[in-house]
Amino acid sequence: MLLVYLKDTQVNISSEFSIIKKYLSGIGASYLKSNGIELSVGDDCAVLATKSKLLISTDTSVSGVHFLKSMPSKSISYRAVATALSDIAAMGGDPVAFNLSLVMPHFNETWMQDFKKGLQKISKEFKLPLIGGDLAKGPLQVSVTVLGKPRKKTLFRTGAKPGDILCLSGSLGQAYIGLKDFKASRSLNTISKPYLYPTPQIQYGQIISNIASSAIDISDGLIQDLTHLIESSKVGCTLDLQEVPIVDKKYMKQCLEFGDDYKILYTVSPSKLKVLKSTLKSVRKKCHTIGTMGGKKLVINNNSFSSLKSWDHFQ
Amino acid sequence: MLLVYLKDTQVNISSEFSIIKKYLSGIGASYLKSNGIELSVGDDCAVLATKSKLLISTDTSVSGVHFLKSMPSKSISYRAVATALSDIAAMGGDPVAFNLSLVMPHFNETWMQDFKKGLQKISKEFKLPLIGGDLAKGPLQVSVTVLGKPRKKTLFRTGAKPGDILCLSGSLGQAYIGLKDFKASRSLNTISKPYLYPTPQIQYGQIISNIASSAIDISDGLIQDLTHLIESSKVGCTLDLQEVPIVDKKYMKQCLEFGDDYKILYTVSPSKLKVLKSTLKSVRKKCHTIGTMGGKKLVINNNSFSSLKSWDHFQ
Repeated sequence: MLLVYLKDTQVNISSEFSIIKKYLSGIGASYLKSNGIELSVGDDCAVLATKSKLLISTDTSVSGVHFLKSMPSKSISYRAVATALSDIAAMGGDPVAFNLSLVMPHFNETWMQDFKKGLQKISKEFKLPLIGGDLAKGPLQVSVTVLGKPRKKTLFRTGAKPGDILCLSGSLGQAYIGLKDFKASRSLNTISKPYLYPTPQIQYGQIISNIASSAIDISDGLIQDLTHLIESSKVGCTLDLQEVPIVDKKYMKQCLEFGDDYKILYTVSPSKLKVLKSTLKSVRKKCHTIGTMGGKKLVINNNSFSSLKSWDHFQ
Repeated sequence: MLLVYLKDTQVNISSEFSIIKKYLSGIGASYLKSNGIELSVGDDCAVLATKSKLLISTDTSVSGVHFLKSMPSKSISYRAVATALSDIAAMGGDPVAFNLSLVMPHFNETWMQDFKKGLQKISKEFKLPLIGGDLAKGPLQVSVTVLGKPRKKTLFRTGAKPGDILCLSGSLGQAYIGLKDFKASRSLNTISKPYLYPTPQIQYGQIISNIASSAIDISDGLIQDLTHLIESSKVGCTLDLQEVPIVDKKYMKQCLEFGDDYKILYTVSPSKLKVLKSTLKSVRKKCHTIGTMGGKKLVINNNSFSSLKSWDHFQ
């Protein structure tokens, strides 16, 4: 046994490492080998031995901007990883591992234990280990870098063609309605859950990766993300607003604009729509067709909401 | 040409993307191909096609904790990437690419232009492109994830053996003295430069990677990082304090404790010390021998500083 008779000369730094050891080590350790991770938390870098191409994406969640400070810390950590994983989903990939950088104003044991539980939960659900990161003192923020493996075909934002059908993987507004409920109820229930614990559409992305022509995840609201898609693909779009599945039509504008739903917005050639639908149906998933690609601008049909003034501008 | 007649419904988000396009895209683009990056900024993920193993590390710099808000933003961005690259250096690797997550309270054009210059500077010096990241509103923080390729032999913290010589790549205290000078002079000069623009020891790490038995970078001060090394390697150490090169002996304690110097602390078998020294000499680099590995605890010789009370505890 090694005896290190070292007294803390730098209390903050030393406690940093004991916090990392206690709360941010060993998460998803059982997936290290199968995911090709040779070295995890504990050295200057982690080492990946995967021979495939790699997907990489970083997402930062800021307290008061991307989440409420009053949310359970289990949800804060889960959401931070889920939003990053959503980018892997939009490329049709498999999660491999993640790095986490946590900045927090002070250490609270209960908060930290709960934070760890959120990491363990998502790590188990998506079989991905935490392989490194950083802990620092400061205003609460969580930055997550995820690594993924692309499947045979990777989905990009650039592949939409004129005539392609615009599709959506699920209803919009769960996050808006969920947050609204949480603010009122302060509890985890079926309505607040999709906001507190959003599900990255990993399986959905993988299923459509061979069939779809382009994809993006809905993190910033339908119109914002659709604009990225049409700009990247250099093709316009006619969006049929009435076809967009919305959780609560009373809050239609908010459900469309709020984002954070992490559904996949994608395009498919009309000739492949049938096989897409049947493939999805076989795993009990739906495809909502909400528009058609073509032209040189974004046209929104059935935009009867006077409050959506900015959208009228397209027509 | 695509015409998107989209008015900003979400001003913050839209300006987020225009800021990314203007200030955080194209940095180090000329290194994308040679570093195996298939897809950079602009989609949900970046795609790496490198077939080698990969090193990955994340470092977060928080305003008021890791850097002064009043520092030039060129230095803030440069330092943030440099500190992350230092982890690649300590493993003896080659830099491949980096992701950057910037959180800032508001947008200031001059600040942002200067921030970009710091990224361009370090990107050029170490031939590494910026391949993705995130921009969010909040208290100023920069989180950097770097990717690297290991060389034939990777340096770990775990490889030190009893009898190995403890070495240091350069003098300690440059950062402490540099920050002290910057606080007084508010200028970039030869004294403040090592703090404002620290140099990750990439070349040094690569040179010793075939010869050294273990390594770690000095980010948290000599004793803290040496403790990590001996704990990981499960072997004690006798440190000869008088042999440690210090920038200014008047501030010996601070120079030893402050950290941020990003020198490499490493061990080498005595039989390889001669070849190590001559190899380093051929590229005009030095090796400072400062102790010997062995025993079961950390012993500090010549610790005549009564102010270093916590260290006395080992003796």
